[in-house]
Amino acid sequence: MNEKDYIFEYKIDVRDYEIDAEGIVNNANYLHYLEHTRHEFCRHVGFSFAQMREQGIDPVLSRLEIDYMTPLRSGDTMISCLNISRRGPRFVFNQDIYRESDHSPVVKAVVTVVSLKEGKLTRGEEIAEAFKEYLEQ
Amino acid sequence: MNEKDYIFEYKIDVRDYEIDAEGIVNNANYLHYLEHTRHEFCRHVGFSFAQMREQGIDPVLSRLEIDYMTPLRSGDTMISCLNISRRGPRFVFNQDIYRESDHSPVVKAVVTVVSLKEGKLTRGEEIAEAFKEYLEQ
Amino acid sequence: MNEKDYIFEYKIDVRDYEIDAEGIVNNANYLHYLEHTRHEFCRHVGFSFAQMREQGIDPVLSRLEIDYMTPLRSGDTMISCLNISRRGPRFVFNQDIYRESDHSPVVKAVVTVVSLKEGKLTRGEEIAEAFKEYLEQ
Amino acid sequence: MNEKDYIFEYKIDVRDYEIDAEGIVNNANYLHYLEHTRHEFCRHVGFSFAQMREQGIDPVLSRLEIDYMTPLRSGDTMISCLNISRRGPRFVFNQDIYRESDHSPVVKAVVTVVSLKEGKLTRGEEIAEAFKEYLEQ
Repeated sequence: MNEKDYIFEYKIDVRDYEIDAEGIVNNANYLHYLEHTRHEFCRHVGFSFAQMREQGIDPVLSRLEIDYMTPLRSGDTMISCLNISRRGPRFVFNQDIYRESDHSPVVKAVVTVVSLKEGKLTRGEEIAEAFKEYLEQ
Repeated sequence: MNEKDYIFEYKIDVRDYEIDAEGIVNNANYLHYLEHTRHEFCRHVGFSFAQMREQGIDPVLSRLEIDYMTPLRSGDTMISCLNISRRGPRFVFNQDIYRESDHSPVVKAVVTVVSLKEGKLTRGEEIAEAFKEYLEQ
Repeated sequence: MNEKDYIFEYKIDVRDYEIDAEGIVNNANYLHYLEHTRHEFCRHVGFSFAQMREQGIDPVLSRLEIDYMTPLRSGDTMISCLNISRRGPRFVFNQDIYRESDHSPVVKAVVTVVSLKEGKLTRGEEIAEAFKEYLEQ
Repeated sequence: MNEKDYIFEYKIDVRDYEIDAEGIVNNANYLHYLEHTRHEFCRHVGFSFAQMREQGIDPVLSRLEIDYMTPLRSGDTMISCLNISRRGPRFVFNQDIYRESDHSPVVKAVVTVVSLKEGKLTRGEEIAEAFKEYLEQ
């Protein structure tokens, strides 16, 4: 977390039911952590997912890449960090999670989101407006 | 599903609790479907995850890429398909999910798994042995 | 399963991600199995949850009691069984799950559901109509 | 929360992936909240579930009763509260969840836990020792 700056950081505790039979957080739960972080970021900038849906805007994932580095275990706390950039109609979230205790990298993910309106792809102008001071150039 | 052959196909019904507030299956649940398919494949070749763990073998994800194409909804059934190849110590699962009703592609994923023994990376020889007739050359 | 008759039985395989660090299915997942069974039953009688929602009907849980008897493990298959009765505006589902291999009782649950329309409690007449040949007298 | 005293209170934010197609938190997730609260309580008294497992102690649910009162929605925060008593080998957790914004009761649950050692029921003396100053007489 030293080598890079993030526009948003969010602390999440591992819950024991997220641990699977291998004694580590199940791989799918990291997508929950990443989604929860994006949603908290949206709330933070004043445009929550609930508000988007009220306006008929449906942000959906189009692609996700994730590298699993250090597995989280019972009792761990993570710092979930993000940056955003825009590529045409796509919002690209660079999301890195670190273990709080020693700052080990846990996962590094690149998440691409597009915005639908009545099921059709849009340029996501309302979202871009809400994100404008945070978008990487 | 016409254009490609798979070594394993598995049918899964969407469960309504997997649907989120957008009315579509939540993005993280596809990782559950993909994992369940890999585990059923392992059981099918005679080397289940439970058996691996009894032998001290811990297969863990190292990387996952997923493209989301057609969202699944309440009442849908999917066909979850896979192929495998080996790259040094890595097992690479090419996993595609199709909607059963019209064969629309739902997700296309590439999942890289490595095998740990007592926390150390191995070459995964026991797994390769179990998979040998299925590995792409 | 000998001692009692059920109006609906549904087979479900344990998925490995449902197992927690204790090596058994996590307690919350049984509520998923029970819900999935109710929804499959509704689909079976021709009135799916998706159809209910289209008509503005929201069935919600008001109470649940569950006894945990035999824990399910990796590789297990269950038979999930139900009966229904009606108590005024309440639909009471008696739901029992058995392990397929030896018919051991897994959980026994009593689930009370009420039907809301625009947020208000109703007598659930549309649901009672769909269930009529299955309701216990 | 006025009318009753609790020995432990814990704040939890709803995560959007816990919301289902009805726009409310899915019924099974409350069992996750309740479990997470019990585990945080155990950590608080200095005997975490990870530590129990290291000593071969497996606490498992034997019964759960839950009344659903006010559904939680996106953006809600809850206060999850508990008391404990002991009935022979059983630990009984009285667990109530309130919506933080207006203190509406969300769920009221009674959760019965027993302690296994090598698969056999025990009197749970180690747990009783850890809980001793919190057990209701």
